[in-house]
Amino acid sequence: MKCNLRIRTTQVFCRGFHQSSVIRSRSSNPAMQFPCLDKMEELSAQLKKRPSSCSLDATSSPHNEPVYERVRSGFKVFQSDKPLFLDYGGVLPKFEIAYETWGSLNKAKSNAVLIHTGLSASSHAKSSVDNPHPGWWEKFIGPGNSMLDTNKFFVICTNTLGGCYGSTGPSSPDPADNSPYATRFPMLSVQDIIRGQERLVTELMGIQKLYASIGCSMGGMQSLAYAQQFPESVEKVVTVSACARSHPSSIAMRHAQRQVLMADQHWSRGFYYPTAAEPNKILPHVGMKLAREIATVTYRSGPEWESRFGTERLNDERPPVLCPDFLIETYLDHQGEKFSLEYDANSFLYLSKTMDLFDLSKSHQDRSKRRRAEARQQYETQDINDEPTRLCDVPYEPIKKNRTTTVEEAREDLRNGMDPIKGKELLVIGVKSDGLFPYWQQREIVDLLGSGREIKHVELDESQSLFGHDTFLLDVEHIGGSIGRFLREKL
Amino acid sequence: MKCNLRIRTTQVFCRGFHQSSVIRSRSSNPAMQFPCLDKMEELSAQLKKRPSSCSLDATSSPHNEPVYERVRSGFKVFQSDKPLFLDYGGVLPKFEIAYETWGSLNKAKSNAVLIHTGLSASSHAKSSVDNPHPGWWEKFIGPGNSMLDTNKFFVICTNTLGGCYGSTGPSSPDPADNSPYATRFPMLSVQDIIRGQERLVTELMGIQKLYASIGCSMGGMQSLAYAQQFPESVEKVVTVSACARSHPSSIAMRHAQRQVLMADQHWSRGFYYPTAAEPNKILPHVGMKLAREIATVTYRSGPEWESRFGTERLNDERPPVLCPDFLIETYLDHQGEKFSLEYDANSFLYLSKTMDLFDLSKSHQDRSKRRRAEARQQYETQDINDEPTRLCDVPYEPIKKNRTTTVEEAREDLRNGMDPIKGKELLVIGVKSDGLFPYWQQREIVDLLGSGREIKHVELDESQSLFGHDTFLLDVEHIGGSIGRFLREKL
Repeated sequence: MKCNLRIRTTQVFCRGFHQSSVIRSRSSNPAMQFPCLDKMEELSAQLKKRPSSCSLDATSSPHNEPVYERVRSGFKVFQSDKPLFLDYGGVLPKFEIAYETWGSLNKAKSNAVLIHTGLSASSHAKSSVDNPHPGWWEKFIGPGNSMLDTNKFFVICTNTLGGCYGSTGPSSPDPADNSPYATRFPMLSVQDIIRGQERLVTELMGIQKLYASIGCSMGGMQSLAYAQQFPESVEKVVTVSACARSHPSSIAMRHAQRQVLMADQHWSRGFYYPTAAEPNKILPHVGMKLAREIATVTYRSGPEWESRFGTERLNDERPPVLCPDFLIETYLDHQGEKFSLEYDANSFLYLSKTMDLFDLSKSHQDRSKRRRAEARQQYETQDINDEPTRLCDVPYEPIKKNRTTTVEEAREDLRNGMDPIKGKELLVIGVKSDGLFPYWQQREIVDLLGSGREIKHVELDESQSLFGHDTFLLDVEHIGGSIGRFLREKL
Repeated sequence: MKCNLRIRTTQVFCRGFHQSSVIRSRSSNPAMQFPCLDKMEELSAQLKKRPSSCSLDATSSPHNEPVYERVRSGFKVFQSDKPLFLDYGGVLPKFEIAYETWGSLNKAKSNAVLIHTGLSASSHAKSSVDNPHPGWWEKFIGPGNSMLDTNKFFVICTNTLGGCYGSTGPSSPDPADNSPYATRFPMLSVQDIIRGQERLVTELMGIQKLYASIGCSMGGMQSLAYAQQFPESVEKVVTVSACARSHPSSIAMRHAQRQVLMADQHWSRGFYYPTAAEPNKILPHVGMKLAREIATVTYRSGPEWESRFGTERLNDERPPVLCPDFLIETYLDHQGEKFSLEYDANSFLYLSKTMDLFDLSKSHQDRSKRRRAEARQQYETQDINDEPTRLCDVPYEPIKKNRTTTVEEAREDLRNGMDPIKGKELLVIGVKSDGLFPYWQQREIVDLLGSGREIKHVELDESQSLFGHDTFLLDVEHIGGSIGRFLREKL
């Protein structure tokens, strides 16, 4: 069944005075109007009216799901019926990973390149016969392409676990009761995500060693984690605009996004998926829009905005308003709105937290290993109960106000955790205009590994890119070129 | 009447499972708990129950206002019954400015120093007999103090117009109907704010020339605007962590804060003040908390957080949660919560926008002058109607997507607008760890004015301060010291 859930939200002209506020007959100045709020209220009303029979894929889920337009089809699904035990003590009793491939696997199975995606990307890195829409890395992959030549390489891209574009995530049914996991979904680490991918690569495809593992942003965390967890299973590693451990500044920005989204009343603590009993639940589209606007501020750079928008307003002759008014505001508003119905809110929350938690430290690995073993034992002895993960015995007000380890100790821990990666052929790319994963975080990766000739470090300065963290999506010349040369290079 | 509206919000231990979500008897993993949301819901419930007779100042307002604890008393009020015509075409038919002073005005009236505040500060820069609570610049002012010696200087500090600590702002009654202005308040420019201050200084105090005009952040915009609008009325000008024109990156961050606050259902398009008809309206405390959390990210710096919090979590042994979990998150949460009941949401929105609009350009001044004249004419001919400031004839979707002037043209416009400041004794201070008003914005002020010997430029590097934009609140040695030396200096 095909139906159009993509609601027209453009071209809202001025509406009447907001009905719920008191209309005052006298005031010293005109009352301000809020077309941006009118628009959001109108969208909420439209979402409530949508036909409840309309779903992304009526066969896989009984629920009235949001439409993730760009990736309705064209991917394959790897199904694993073996449980995946997780770094933070949870379990996925079974799981699915959506994936796409381009090019052909050679007989020796030695030409596979695995692309790890950023937070919100699907497996659709490149257009294909099955899905002709342009992929998110369209210009970086293809026959004869200078980065990923599909005449040579067998390119694989997956939707990460926790996502909503075909892989198991919070919107997927929990096998325990066949209702969406929602916030009963277990927290994932980046290492958990790549453990799922590794099953796809080895069990389904029979590939013993990847030629390369490539990722940008959260994908660049994954490529490092892949080399850390499976050092013998990958030849070359590329990490772009990523880090060895998250930084409190980035955590702070993602924290803000999560809290804003969770404050949307429609989020309903994650249980916003319409059910037979409550068919009119709506997505937390306002919270998603706002979270994406904050994220966009961290993805792009000030100098780019200075030259594109400056401080010009839509109309200098009008009194300023609190709804979007400066050009930069209309840009952010548009970015937020575009995203608000295209990605699952819970996937966003979980993967955002997964990024915060990324840490290649030895102590982190040791704890994770122990917890995975505990999760396995609990699962195998069927000792699963519904005791919630409460914060009951610690007060909510922080009892621990400052860090307990020194900066130096934490750095040594990180260096130890990265031991398995040492000696691997590694390309590290940083972008100086990136404020979210600043260039010193990529320098740190190189420093921690000790800069042998097997490590190549590229840093794009402001004259090469002003696109900030988003550079990897846009810069075919410098990002694509550097990766292409690295892949072709023989040590 | 004294009453305790300061609601205890600490020490919320675990609550029962959220009632509105379906309790599921079976799930593969435990459901996540949300103590941070429980706490906000509890606070909303408590706010609804507060006694409606309880108000900040029952004589000045019939409404059940929030308690702005720190500044209940101890300030004086300047009342102007002459209308103030505003840069964006609005009018304040009359207005009040709350102010405090320290030290004594000499006979020649030549020792007055006016301090302009940042967005959310009150007039209470320093403790006094009337209000013994420490002021926001407590350590920078006092008898024998190395920055502002009150044995020598007569120090004045005001609450800015648009604020909520005693000066006329959105929570004040509109004389047209004696109900709070709310979002019928007219938009203010920084220049409007200092025009109000100038009346206090000249009309009430009879001071013809200030010895100095000093400000940080939005206050640093004001001190520049004072010199621009009244160059003959000020001897020395100090601007700290400010700029000559806002930057799209800062606008973007403030935009995010505003949109988040406006999305709080309790904000009610600004009409959240309890009325006789609706005594149980509550403040948009969740939106304020979230906005302040985002703001805090822009006020402090990453390196400071790295050394204070690193990436440590409250408890490594617990599964991660979406409520505050990392130390940095509990810090942000606490900062947001502290602020959420202490400042008026509409004041925050208006003054945040005022900062965005700050621009010393010539074209901006010319437009403003014309609009003020139009406002005066309209007021004097009583041609005031209630026509709202709609965006009716332009579609909401941006029709103008990119800037229409070049970077160079805009810079020349700014240089021309700053002409009146040229030749003034000026101290410009920038802080390298400040991401909100980056150091190049202070360099730009100096460059635009042409660096004569009357201009002194101080730049604090990371070894001197890691406190980012907040440095001016904390750094007695470098900020206080530099300002003190500048004030004592004879050219």
